[in-house]
Amino acid sequence: MRVLIPYDARNPKTRLSPLFEEEERAEFARVMLKTVLRTVDQAGHDPTVLATAPLDCDWPVVVDGDCSIVVDRDWPVVVDDRPLSVAVNDVLDDWDTPLCIIMADLPLVTVEAVDRLLDQQEDVVIAPGLGGGTNALVIRHPEFRVDYHGTSYRDHRNHAQECGASVSTVDSFRLAVDIDDPDDLVEVLLHGQGEVTDWLADAGVRLSETASRTTIERV
Amino acid sequence: MRVLIPYDARNPKTRLSPLFEEEERAEFARVMLKTVLRTVDQAGHDPTVLATAPLDCDWPVVVDGDCSIVVDRDWPVVVDDRPLSVAVNDVLDDWDTPLCIIMADLPLVTVEAVDRLLDQQEDVVIAPGLGGGTNALVIRHPEFRVDYHGTSYRDHRNHAQECGASVSTVDSFRLAVDIDDPDDLVEVLLHGQGEVTDWLADAGVRLSETASRTTIERV
Repeated sequence: MRVLIPYDARNPKTRLSPLFEEEERAEFARVMLKTVLRTVDQAGHDPTVLATAPLDCDWPVVVDGDCSIVVDRDWPVVVDDRPLSVAVNDVLDDWDTPLCIIMADLPLVTVEAVDRLLDQQEDVVIAPGLGGGTNALVIRHPEFRVDYHGTSYRDHRNHAQECGASVSTVDSFRLAVDIDDPDDLVEVLLHGQGEVTDWLADAGVRLSETASRTTIERV
Repeated sequence: MRVLIPYDARNPKTRLSPLFEEEERAEFARVMLKTVLRTVDQAGHDPTVLATAPLDCDWPVVVDGDCSIVVDRDWPVVVDDRPLSVAVNDVLDDWDTPLCIIMADLPLVTVEAVDRLLDQQEDVVIAPGLGGGTNALVIRHPEFRVDYHGTSYRDHRNHAQECGASVSTVDSFRLAVDIDDPDDLVEVLLHGQGEVTDWLADAGVRLSETASRTTIERV
């Protein structure tokens, strides 16, 4: 299945500013993006990045005539600087369903979690994020459109029902944890692997056990 | 399978104090406990409450001779006022494995999530909680003992390996969300159902959408 991966290429992960400088945040965001891309690839699907700007990444990129499509060696990148929901809905206008949308800040994603998401056959399948967000969507209904503003999990459920689309959710911790705040990195250190945990270790981020809960610190 | 459900019957959910008085917190904790008990029951397993004090609950209780075992009409209650890990390990000394331990503050638990937890056949199966905790455990290895202090997810994995026990984790959002802080109630309002969401609605707790994220407010 085609999998769209929206990515903020301009000033990603601002809420990680207490820990990382702008350059570091951009680098960590790219490492998370690559983790999601590789996992979708390994699960046998076709990822396309939907980026707000051309990617400053470590794989070769070729910009086509009108600068709106960037094709890298492995994964195509569509560039659209409009707000997230507008850009995703524009893709939905142009592409056929089924289409899957997975956020780029889910470094805990595994092949098994992608399989479980795509195994469900309802018209709309939602992987809720913590705090009311929508971290992944499978769309098989031609009228369904996204709205990531606000409590999007609830809004997407309601919108699916308005369209007459069947809807289900996938119960996955790995899809529910998106990385926004420093404390979210606890989950990456405990449950992540590979480049993303290596990057955090190199940056000096490690677990910190206080009396009541586990947090992170940068040393 | 026998399922042990540890429960703090004395001063539960102190971190919900910004929202609820002590009596309310006790009532909400009991509603969450009942949700977990009913779900384990519906999944076809045998729950036993491991409580720090006799339960002040709405089902009849009968205290046996030495006051350490309370049997209610539906679910047995073992009373042990020692620290959580000591009390659980004492049960592990006395009971045969396999044994499952599920926390009482998981009101999003479903029959499907319990099934997925118990379907895994490793010697030790862990359902991680957010922030490094252990929200559910299946123990099939006679030497494995629990230690809920600190980053217990990591410690339980290490301890399983020390015992020579095979270990796996279950990828479940519904088992990962334990209710400690007011913001955790966002997940209950969005993904819960039945008595637990009714109780919150009666208490005036509802979603509040701010610019950046969804929180809760009490009106």
